[in-house]
Amino acid sequence: MSILVVGSVAFDSIRTPDAEHADLLGGSATHFSVAASFFSPVRLVAVVGEDFGEDQLAPFRERGVDLDGLQRVPGRTFRWSGEYGANPDEARTLDTQLNVFADFRPALPAGWDATPVLFLANIDPELQDSVLDQMSAPRITALDTMNFWIAQKPEQLKRTLARVQILLINEGEIRQLTGAHGIVEAAQRTRALGPQVVVIKRGEHGALVVDDDGFFAVPAFPAVRVVDPTGAGDSFAGGFLGYLASRAPDGRPDYRRAAVLGSVMASFQVEAFSLERVRRLQPGEITGRFEAFRRLTRFGEPDFLDALQQRAATR
Amino acid sequence: MSILVVGSVAFDSIRTPDAEHADLLGGSATHFSVAASFFSPVRLVAVVGEDFGEDQLAPFRERGVDLDGLQRVPGRTFRWSGEYGANPDEARTLDTQLNVFADFRPALPAGWDATPVLFLANIDPELQDSVLDQMSAPRITALDTMNFWIAQKPEQLKRTLARVQILLINEGEIRQLTGAHGIVEAAQRTRALGPQVVVIKRGEHGALVVDDDGFFAVPAFPAVRVVDPTGAGDSFAGGFLGYLASRAPDGRPDYRRAAVLGSVMASFQVEAFSLERVRRLQPGEITGRFEAFRRLTRFGEPDFLDALQQRAATR
Repeated sequence: MSILVVGSVAFDSIRTPDAEHADLLGGSATHFSVAASFFSPVRLVAVVGEDFGEDQLAPFRERGVDLDGLQRVPGRTFRWSGEYGANPDEARTLDTQLNVFADFRPALPAGWDATPVLFLANIDPELQDSVLDQMSAPRITALDTMNFWIAQKPEQLKRTLARVQILLINEGEIRQLTGAHGIVEAAQRTRALGPQVVVIKRGEHGALVVDDDGFFAVPAFPAVRVVDPTGAGDSFAGGFLGYLASRAPDGRPDYRRAAVLGSVMASFQVEAFSLERVRRLQPGEITGRFEAFRRLTRFGEPDFLDALQQRAATR
Repeated sequence: MSILVVGSVAFDSIRTPDAEHADLLGGSATHFSVAASFFSPVRLVAVVGEDFGEDQLAPFRERGVDLDGLQRVPGRTFRWSGEYGANPDEARTLDTQLNVFADFRPALPAGWDATPVLFLANIDPELQDSVLDQMSAPRITALDTMNFWIAQKPEQLKRTLARVQILLINEGEIRQLTGAHGIVEAAQRTRALGPQVVVIKRGEHGALVVDDDGFFAVPAFPAVRVVDPTGAGDSFAGGFLGYLASRAPDGRPDYRRAAVLGSVMASFQVEAFSLERVRRLQPGEITGRFEAFRRLTRFGEPDFLDALQQRAATR
């Protein structure tokens, strides 16, 4: 099934402890759509300025992303500039220029209202709401957000949250949203707001899925060198929803495999700046890393029952 | 096989966001030995003062911990006072009174030098070294340490580390020890110092084992209410080494199951103050939570190969 993503397409300027790059292709919808495209067809709704050229469109075209919803308007494209220190989970924003993104009003091309899967990347919850208004009856709806909207538009955000099934959110942000420190309580309070599936992204500590089945924990992949963490969360969302869309509408959604594939795509994303690693992935690399996640997490059957019983008998 | 543990026995005074308790039975060797005792016989080497009475010995006796190495000397027992805020991974020390611990010189009772498994809980690396000198030929040696020793006695710590097989250490501390932020590099540098098995404890994010087989990640158990995080790391070590000792000397050590059982014991430890939860555990609770860890981490076989190939074919 196809996925509609609404979010940002941006130029990122990024400084890490080892390197610095300006005007990289970035943005939440960019990273999401390229990652998701390995599993399902993707339709992109976003806005860019006149400084956005054919070169920048190449990665989308290569990956078959439908760009009919990409508005091109007078002005400059959204620009973000940030810096990472030793801890890849802490980005410091140096500069944000909204540019054409300031007046972005998502508009769906004809027929796209019937897209079965919707991902609302991190934008103003009012705009996310307006996209939901435009959709006819999506089967799967998911939303990402950030600390800025939780602080600035909490009521609007809660209204929008009430309309989606899946929330993807950072660990710090779910605490901010709910006021609960304990992750279980934070997840419960969030589910009470609407989304029955809560995916808590923990950066280099992986992710936790909370749904009707309980909890599922997937680690981040430790054996990669983190070159640039930018886009990891959106690539996670791309793998997660790309997989769900590829399996639907058959049977029950498997959020566990989806979260592993989210972690797989995020683990590739951080290995290079911008899309340099992810855009060139081969299917075998994805399945190979999925198996590496199994090796990372599997453990044997209980073989300690005798020891426990012997010890209990001597007490 | 039996385990010899050398470490602290203490009175803890602890303040959490919800409660406050004074003079609780605590200390690294206490938490370790009670947790390990469910799997293997434990011999304790530690020191207490005249204020340490029969009441405090009860949990050790109940669990069959051999107390022949527990020195009782004039003076007061080691006292630690600490506070936790909303984040259970951050303890703030309010007061430390070393008391009789200041002059602690570990001395092994006759015959204990032949104990096959040794755990050096977090004490001065010079004392840890002196215990290694007293042992004849332990099969399994493991060590824990803390930021204080990494900062104050780095050279002594490295000499001691070179003599043990397993290091259990916090995430922040391994970065401090090695100067590497990336967890893979930090683990590699640590293994170059001696220990071939490095267990990185991540508090509410679980633990990572690095050994010749690569990486194994186990999450912390999310579905518990953290009442008091004190002793979680030592209970982890107790489950980890208690299990290894129960299986040795047969076959290869299974550090994966050991780490899951470490997480199991830590998950019980944090559910109550002091030993109130762990000392009364039933074997069935331990096996039950081991299976809960499997439910928490398992995921299905790849069922996305068709989707990947179809998408690749349309590119």
